Amino acid sequence: MQNINLSLFIPNSFLAETNDLKVKTYKVGIISRALAVFRIKNVIIYNDKSFNDVKGFKDAAFIETVLNYMNTPQYLRKRAFPIQADLKHVGILPPLRTPYHPTDNSPKQGEYRQGFTVKRNKKGTFVDIGMDKLAFCKEQLTVNKIFSFKITKIAKEVIVTPEEPDDIYWGYKTINENNGLKKSLNKLNPNLVVVTTRYADTINSIFDELRYKVNKSNNIAIVFGGPYSSVENDFTDLKWEYIEINTIPNQGTQTVRTEEAVVSTLSLFNLLLAD
Amino acid sequence: MQNINLSLFIPNSFLAETNDLKVKTYKVGIISRALAVFRIKNVIIYNDKSFNDVKGFKDAAFIETVLNYMNTPQYLRKRAFPIQADLKHVGILPPLRTPYHPTDNSPKQGEYRQGFTVKRNKKGTFVDIGMDKLAFCKEQLTVNKIFSFKITKIAKEVIVTPEEPDDIYWGYKTINENNGLKKSLNKLNPNLVVVTTRYADTINSIFDELRYKVNKSNNIAIVFGGPYSSVENDFTDLKWEYIEINTIPNQGTQTVRTEEAVVSTLSLFNLLLAD
Repeated sequence: MQNINLSLFIPNSFLAETNDLKVKTYKVGIISRALAVFRIKNVIIYNDKSFNDVKGFKDAAFIETVLNYMNTPQYLRKRAFPIQADLKHVGILPPLRTPYHPTDNSPKQGEYRQGFTVKRNKKGTFVDIGMDKLAFCKEQLTVNKIFSFKITKIAKEVIVTPEEPDDIYWGYKTINENNGLKKSLNKLNPNLVVVTTRYADTINSIFDELRYKVNKSNNIAIVFGGPYSSVENDFTDLKWEYIEINTIPNQGTQTVRTEEAVVSTLSLFNLLLAD
Repeated sequence: MQNINLSLFIPNSFLAETNDLKVKTYKVGIISRALAVFRIKNVIIYNDKSFNDVKGFKDAAFIETVLNYMNTPQYLRKRAFPIQADLKHVGILPPLRTPYHPTDNSPKQGEYRQGFTVKRNKKGTFVDIGMDKLAFCKEQLTVNKIFSFKITKIAKEVIVTPEEPDDIYWGYKTINENNGLKKSLNKLNPNLVVVTTRYADTINSIFDELRYKVNKSNNIAIVFGGPYSSVENDFTDLKWEYIEINTIPNQGTQTVRTEEAVVSTLSLFNLLLAD
């Protein structure tokens, strides 16, 4: 699974069923946790047109903000996220406990850290990597942004270089561009599109076909509908392989919630992709 | 999957990581939804001794109450559950939308309904099955309890008979007897015990063995640990087949929460058991 990019598509109507901000926050937290548990590379919030533009925009921005907040290491959250209404209930969110969310503040040489670029001078950039003092990077980076760094030297100064590890899961990227599903898919340009819908063949009945398609792909989009918007269009395209599946055969309830479908489906893909 | 009894074992420490009553309520709701989506017959709350008795009791009772509340059709909840502190936040819980939670109040002859026994006379028992007037059952039933009924006649009176359908999923039973895991397993007496733990072989590496064991069992216990209590004992027993599995190979986070493990694991068993 390490070398395969999985991208998750969720609609901006994902939170439509609840008005409670704490519950909305928690629901986005479930998605964020699932992304990290199953090492997903991208999460794309698409506009499924369930709402008018104002509400659709607002909900998508909320989902994006909470996803980004959760993906940010604890030691950078205060710097990266000014106090705002959308983050009122983040205290209830579970931590991700990923390798890029270290809990110690004394990293070693050779380790990787996410860092926040605090200020810049002619020689380079000062970076907060969660230590008592700022680290220094000998490159001119945009300030007030988060980058990944490798700690190349720990002495009087801590020296870091922009770099991301390629052998461990290093977080997800949230993409929220207010595009419809088709445009979102085209921008990502995957080589396999998987649409989950209860109206498709059940996963057990097409398991071998699915496994075959998954195993020859390295950039897979998995698409979920929302509470009022099961994915109905057909995204067959010459550019990518396409398959629709019902990942929850014989469901005992009339409807399955997006977050339930996400965890259930990613668990099955994790099995499919495990060595 | 219809003829196989799946039972889920969760520890009474399940909610240990949060103090927020609304979040606790929502977390139990995730379990309830998973039980219904994947048509689980029993949920057993076992005492994993993470807490002292008072706290352990209290948390188990809370979990039990919310699970039972969610499993009860909307039209019986007011009768079955007096106002109580544990149910303060049930307004945020999603409905199960199972066949035993009908939303219409005009059932037809031959249909099944859960009913609450309101009062009794010499001829039988008056039952609330969610219609405008009480139905009548020509048997002497304990009052103030919920039973399942078949509607045998709709005329001036609505006549019902105690009966449960055997071809559709009809809800789960919550068992909370404050027993440890071993005693809880012995009381259920399954023919296969599956313990989920990240320290076991990954599901992909023992998939065929698991499938073989699952396919020759009709009463399967699936055991989950809690936030501070991965299942460590060995429950190998002559009475049952036994297998330990890691259902989330290559997890991207240091820990997986019980509710995440539950949904992920039940999704995999649903695949295994689908025809």
